Formats: sequence, C-alpha cells, structure tokens
Amino acid sequence: MYTYPELLNLVNQKILETSFGSNPKELYEPITYMMSLGGKRLRPVLTLMAHNLFADDVHKSLDAALAIEVFHNFTLVHDDIMDAAPLRRGKETIYQKWNMPVAILSGDLMLIRSIDLLARTETSQFASLLRVFNDTAAKVCEGQQIDMNFESQSQVTHEEYIEMITLKTAVLLGASLEIGARIANASNEDAQHLYEFGKCIGIAFQIQDDILDSFGEKAEIGKRIGGDIASNKKTLLLIELLASVHKDDLKLLQNLMAEPNDDQKIKGVLELYAKYQIKAFAESQKQQYLDLAYQHLNAVSVSPDRKQLLISTAKELMERIS
Amino acid sequence: MYTYPELLNLVNQKILETSFGSNPKELYEPITYMMSLGGKRLRPVLTLMAHNLFADDVHKSLDAALAIEVFHNFTLVHDDIMDAAPLRRGKETIYQKWNMPVAILSGDLMLIRSIDLLARTETSQFASLLRVFNDTAAKVCEGQQIDMNFESQSQVTHEEYIEMITLKTAVLLGASLEIGARIANASNEDAQHLYEFGKCIGIAFQIQDDILDSFGEKAEIGKRIGGDIASNKKTLLLIELLASVHKDDLKLLQNLMAEPNDDQKIKGVLELYAKYQIKAFAESQKQQYLDLAYQHLNAVSVSPDRKQLLISTAKELMERIS
Repeated sequence: MYTYPELLNLVNQKILETSFGSNPKELYEPITYMMSLGGKRLRPVLTLMAHNLFADDVHKSLDAALAIEVFHNFTLVHDDIMDAAPLRRGKETIYQKWNMPVAILSGDLMLIRSIDLLARTETSQFASLLRVFNDTAAKVCEGQQIDMNFESQSQVTHEEYIEMITLKTAVLLGASLEIGARIANASNEDAQHLYEFGKCIGIAFQIQDDILDSFGEKAEIGKRIGGDIASNKKTLLLIELLASVHKDDLKLLQNLMAEPNDDQKIKGVLELYAKYQIKAFAESQKQQYLDLAYQHLNAVSVSPDRKQLLISTAKELMERIS
Repeated sequence: MYTYPELLNLVNQKILETSFGSNPKELYEPITYMMSLGGKRLRPVLTLMAHNLFADDVHKSLDAALAIEVFHNFTLVHDDIMDAAPLRRGKETIYQKWNMPVAILSGDLMLIRSIDLLARTETSQFASLLRVFNDTAAKVCEGQQIDMNFESQSQVTHEEYIEMITLKTAVLLGASLEIGARIANASNEDAQHLYEFGKCIGIAFQIQDDILDSFGEKAEIGKRIGGDIASNKKTLLLIELLASVHKDDLKLLQNLMAEPNDDQKIKGVLELYAKYQIKAFAESQKQQYLDLAYQHLNAVSVSPDRKQLLISTAKELMERIS
C-alpha cells in the first residue's frame, strides 16, 4: 500500500502534467496559478487512499482525484470573491491579483474542467461517479449560501450549524472517499460507509477548527486566537453559549458582542465560555462525530491493517494544535 | 414533424415541471426566477429540431435541451455581474434583485444542474454528449474573456473578432443542434454538419446584430440605434472602419470617438461608415457565413423537406429588423 507522501507525490505530479488550457491567457494563467498554490491536497489523497483500500492500481483514480481538487479550488476562487479576500495560502487571491470578472470566469472554467477530468476515468460506473460528484457540488454551494445567511440571521440552532458545515465542507471529504472506492469497484455498502466516514470526520474537523480558534495554542497563519469571537462569528461555541446563557448573563454577553475593544471582548467571551463549559460541550460534539466516523470505517469490508493509513490521516487532522 | 410553437411549448412545459431545488431559498428562488423570464428558448428548440430531423421521439432530447437552456442562463447570470447589468429581458437581473454573492452562487448551481440534466438523457452516447457540452461550455467562457479583453485592447483584427463571437455565441448554437442529432442517433458526419450549420448561423446572426445596432429601423428594448457607436464598442463595423480609414480621415475618426455628444458622434461615424462602405462589407461577411451554413445543412443526409423548419427558423432570425 501507498503512504501519504507517495500519494501526495502522485497528485502533485498529475497537477504538474495537466494543462488546463492556454488561450486566452487572462483566463488560464489564474487557473494554473491557483492550482500551483499547493496545500495538503487532502481531498485527492483521500480519493487515492479509498481506492487503495480495495486495490493497488490507484492511478486509475488519479483523474477523478484531480477533478475533486480542481472542484475544491473552484469553490475557493468564488468564495474569495464573496468574502473580498486578499490572501489564500499566504498568496494573493485571483480576485485580488487579477480582478472580479477574471475570478468569476476562471472559477467557472475550473468547474467545467473538473467534470472533464472526472469524465476521463476509465470505469463502467461513470453514471454513479457523476451523480456523487454533482450532488456533492450542489451541496457545497448550498452550504456556502447557508453560511452567508447566518451572518444576517438573528438565531442559529446547533442543528442548522451542523447542517451548514456538513454541506459546506464535510460532504466533499465524503465524496472524495466514495469516488475512489467506486473506481476501485467497491460494493455500494462499502462506498457509502466511506462516504459517511469522510463526512463525519469533516464535521468533527470543523468543530475542532471552531475550538482551536478560541482555545488553540497558536493561531493559523493570518489569523489570531479569538478571531471568531472578535467578529461575532456564529461558531458552534457562540451558538451554544447564546442557547444556554442565563438571563442575568445575557446583557453582559450582548454588551461584549458590541464591545469595540477586541482584547476585552475576547477575554470576556472566553470567561463566559468557561462559566458555561462551552469547550467541553464542543469537545463532546466532536467526539460523537468521530465515534460515528469510526463505526462506518469499521463496517468497511476490508482487513483492519489496510485501514491504518486512513485512521492515522484522520488522527493527524484532528491533532493539529493550531 | 413538430412546428416551432409546438417545440417551444414542450420546452416551456419541461421548464415548469422541473424543480431545481428549494433549500436554501436564497439560492433556488433566483434560479426559478431566471428560468421563468422567458425568451425565444432558441437553443433548446434547436436541440429538439435537430432531433426531429432524424426521429419523431423528440421527448428523448428534452432533458438535454433543458440542460442547454439552463447552461445558457448560467452564462447570462454571471455576465450580468461582470457587466453590472441592472436589466435582462426587461426585468431586474439576479445581480440587481438580490446581490453579487447570490448571483455568483446561483449561477454556479445552474452550471452544476445543467450537467445533471444532461446526465438524465437515456442514450448510449452519453460520453460524446458530455464532451460536446463541456468543450462548448469552456469555449463560451473563453469567448467572454476575449470579449472583455477587447475593451482594453488597442487593436482588434477581423479574425480576432470572428473568433470571439464564434466562441462567445456561435458554438452554443452549434452544440444545441449537434446534441439533439446525437441523441437521435444521427451519424457523426450529420451531427458535425449540424454543429457547423448552427455555428455559422450564429456568426451571421452576430454580424447582423452589429449591423442593426447602427443601421436598424428601431432599437431593441433598452437600447438605442447607434448605441455601439456611442460606446466605441469594437464591433465588426468599427474594426473594419479602423482598418480601412485613410490617413486624412483618421484624425476625424479619433476625434469622433472622443466626442462627448452622442448624437454628433453617431452622425459622424455613420458618415464614415457610408464613405468606406462598411455596411456592404459587413453584409458580405454575413452572407459568407450564411452560405457556409447552408452548405453544411445541405450535406446532412435527410430529405430536404425535413430541413424546412430549420431553414425558416434561421431566416426568421436573420430577418428581424431591430
């Protein structure tokens, strides 16, 4: 079986070999730029890992793996317009480096190219691959819209929050695994268990992300600890605090959310998080999804030793401290 | 065989019956709104007409026909953002009625749904349908980018202009016909001749559009005669004038292009168009593409009487006076 670095190398090699087009250069240079920014390439590597659970000819899933990576990058290019984001992975976004029309059009073309790449897969199961891919693509758009809605929505429930991160982030991890499994001719049941495994890991990861933003040891590049608190972002933590805060603390919380001094605001909200045991709540939610994820992975009908790489990859994802 | 109104009715019925999704409504209401704005539904009707050349079971091409209409509307939604356009078919654009992020996301979802619809087609030729559809989709994006490039490009040649309108507009008419033909199990040759017929008609139509903007009897809704001249738009007419103007008229033309009074500007440029016989040049270009279109239609191996509807439809397109 392949290791993560070996699979990552296959993915990066494939990206280097792939021409997305050349003319007009205003349209294709941004695509090549975006695809060269790097990153963990988690989704395409998961596709190859899922394939590798069932068979060693992982190169058969390379086109589909790249399709998923190109699709993922398309969502980033369009999200960066909506967020007016200047930076992505420490480099200028397409929106910033070129302009809004170029970012719209090159994103559109990445979505089109992702379908092209998927269609190159040699498989008798193309119809089901395309269905999984397109259903997932629609869900990712829905999740992004729901996330934007949250900004102007006065109340958001846990359930709505979990639904949003499921659609916006988690289903694509699930689909990455399911597609690799299907290309390797896994059974329907195994493919669906892997989808659920990826989806649940994705939800747990997103909850972890919320926890780290308020309780991490150091911030991600370009972010600060407490950034979510400073911007009143409706994370699982804030949603739970708003749902459980006593009447006599509500005014304090409302004042904190309107507090212009970020340091005081973060300190005050963290004190309320402590008082209402919000971190423990979020940790228990995260653990529920992790447990569910491993139940699905256990149910996949291949020997346990073949599943070790997926388990260690999921662990590494969950163990990052910033 | 079916008439245009009968085929249009099938298309409109199909649109009414189709749910694009419902939740979140901020994403799906704009799609339903956009798809209900109406119009000639030229592209999906062409798909059914091409099918009907070879077989009477045109309903087999209905999903693909709708896929093309949804794709076309996706391009309009995103173009309206890039152009900051307030109106489309006399109604507010999605960009205007909702906002930019909603227009980006609902457009993205329309592109995804168009592939879904295409995939519903019962055919043994799905791989070739998807290839035609996706190649065309990429070309439409390329054409839009080239068109935007023209705005800042000091010189544009005829050839570049024809290439731009081919990509931006004409190939989708070609693909609409080719896809209907392929679903009806036409031969490769016939499908390709129909593609070329549609493409050449599309080019001729676009040249006609340029001619009518300067020489039409009345303007399209929301436009004025001479609107292209007023905005210095690089139409085939202006490109030819710039290429053929004598040294002693060049300064006059440059002054006219900088003239702030639109009426004087339009009058002056029209005089130069007359002096350099620009209308006759454009008419001859249009006629070349029309001739080529009919050569391809003649080569399609079905009896001439079955081709009458395509011929009369193309004639009506070319005979509109505004």
